Amino acid sequence: MQARFLSALKREPVDCTPVWLMRQAGRYLPEYRATRERAGDFLTLCKTPELACEVTLQPLARFPFDAAILFSDILTIPDAMGLGLSIEEGVGPRFKQRLEHPADVARLGIPDPERELKYVTDAVRLIKRELGGRTPLIGFAGSPWTLATYMIEGGGDREFVRAKSWLYGAPEVFAKLQDLLAEAVTQYLNAQIAAGVDAVMIFDTWGGVLSTDAYQTYSLAPMAKIVRGLSAQVPSIIFTKGGGLWLEQIAASGCAGVGLDWSVDIADAKQRIGAQVALQGNLDPAVLRAPHAVIEQEVDRILTRFGTGPGHVFNLGHGITPDIEPDAVAAMVERVHASSRQYHR
Amino acid sequence: MQARFLSALKREPVDCTPVWLMRQAGRYLPEYRATRERAGDFLTLCKTPELACEVTLQPLARFPFDAAILFSDILTIPDAMGLGLSIEEGVGPRFKQRLEHPADVARLGIPDPERELKYVTDAVRLIKRELGGRTPLIGFAGSPWTLATYMIEGGGDREFVRAKSWLYGAPEVFAKLQDLLAEAVTQYLNAQIAAGVDAVMIFDTWGGVLSTDAYQTYSLAPMAKIVRGLSAQVPSIIFTKGGGLWLEQIAASGCAGVGLDWSVDIADAKQRIGAQVALQGNLDPAVLRAPHAVIEQEVDRILTRFGTGPGHVFNLGHGITPDIEPDAVAAMVERVHASSRQYHR
Repeated sequence: MQARFLSALKREPVDCTPVWLMRQAGRYLPEYRATRERAGDFLTLCKTPELACEVTLQPLARFPFDAAILFSDILTIPDAMGLGLSIEEGVGPRFKQRLEHPADVARLGIPDPERELKYVTDAVRLIKRELGGRTPLIGFAGSPWTLATYMIEGGGDREFVRAKSWLYGAPEVFAKLQDLLAEAVTQYLNAQIAAGVDAVMIFDTWGGVLSTDAYQTYSLAPMAKIVRGLSAQVPSIIFTKGGGLWLEQIAASGCAGVGLDWSVDIADAKQRIGAQVALQGNLDPAVLRAPHAVIEQEVDRILTRFGTGPGHVFNLGHGITPDIEPDAVAAMVERVHASSRQYHR
Repeated sequence: MQARFLSALKREPVDCTPVWLMRQAGRYLPEYRATRERAGDFLTLCKTPELACEVTLQPLARFPFDAAILFSDILTIPDAMGLGLSIEEGVGPRFKQRLEHPADVARLGIPDPERELKYVTDAVRLIKRELGGRTPLIGFAGSPWTLATYMIEGGGDREFVRAKSWLYGAPEVFAKLQDLLAEAVTQYLNAQIAAGVDAVMIFDTWGGVLSTDAYQTYSLAPMAKIVRGLSAQVPSIIFTKGGGLWLEQIAASGCAGVGLDWSVDIADAKQRIGAQVALQGNLDPAVLRAPHAVIEQEVDRILTRFGTGPGHVFNLGHGITPDIEPDAVAAMVERVHASSRQYHR
């Protein structure tokens, strides 16, 4: 029998709404913190297939999640391009060699996913073996725009000063960078698919900081190109945080599912694009700090808004934060499964 | 003759599109930095009417802006409530006494705008005298939700952990806080109107971090209440950053104008709400770092998208940043005035 998550993503009937969480393998779990301690640092965890497999599976042992997501980072591609990624707790990601000048784009090559990123496909193969077909596995990558921001800024920057200066000041070179990244992400996701993932997701964490025009050209167009270039076997999900204004255009990319942050009313999203794609989301992660009764009420609110029929994958509107109690997640997952059955008769 | 800015805000004919900038009196101007140096710190600048007047007028001496905006801060109200505001460069606003527990709301009183906030109305009277009717003056306040986030966090917090914990964990008390702030803002804006401002703007900087439901209840509803409570003489503008999904609801509040951040396509906004309200915005402030030819092209893009007819006040989609060259602003303002005439024949 096809897993609920994949059925929902294909808008096929399910018995109840499937649920998983962005960053479900993460710091809110004591067992994750223990493995990470053992690994020494975050990147070693990503780059050691046995450890990446271990933390990928941890949340599934605790909660009846309907999907696993590969434990990795969106910045593996620029790291494999030679920019030298480091990720420190409390500081965030840093590149030793950020792109200093538009001319630096010329020296970037596309990493071979089965060489420089073999630790990722190895992790996929290992996780798939361990899952034994019980739970589908989601692979992922960062969007070209999101990767470009980190590569140009050298890390996180809330104003995107350098990235936007490139975009507006050197649009031809910027477009070349986006093409290169689109090709690299396509190859990377296809390698994850070949290694066994059951669906792929593109995280466009920073698409929402662009104007509508710049978003279409520099974030959505490269993502649509990636979607067109994927092996057809598995469904894909595009998630642009802050992209609620552009749902129609995202849905037209050819993806199977669209991720929604919590600012979007899911009833409105369903009305706008629910006939074409599945919707994934969209509880405010902050709700998980509230009393369980409030968590249940907010879960119910989203389920009611989506209403009857398939095509909904429950999730948060962004990643779960490290301060959340695992009990809150248990309450949420249980409520999604129990409360949604009425909409799937 | 009525000033262009006021005509546009009332959707009456104009000769060309009026323009002003959020934070137009600010650190990108050397003369502002000099006055601030003299004042010692930011709050002294706000609290000394002569200095607030001086910096309010500075950008008008340089650029043919169509409106002046009172130099002040959105956090004057919580400061007047006794929370002890300090604003350090590079650190941002801090309150000595943040709201620690929901019970703390009970001890908050509504400041008398002509006593605790008299430095603001004094500044308005002074600026109006100096302007001599040449340029309209905009007064402003922060939205209840935005004020509440700072009061509860004690400063800025990108995740709004404490504010959202209150909202979801103690919704009745939170609603009381919003009522209190709505009343305080209404009295404050009415005092600014009585002192002479020609329009008022409500800055809802953080409304966009809420879910659609929470936004309606805890941010828009109090703002609509404020708008209903304003002396009818002057038009009001509501600006929710990240509020592009909710334009119809914002426009239904009774405000004359709706501020747009740069993520919104202004043609789409015009089609959605342009028959009811004026639109203010919406160039990405990052564009001002680009070559002048790009600035002009992006100005033209917005003017073309808005197209013919009144009801557009040109602005950035958020405040101008300190690193911008004044020349870039000059190029932008000139282009708005020159390029927009074709749409107002």
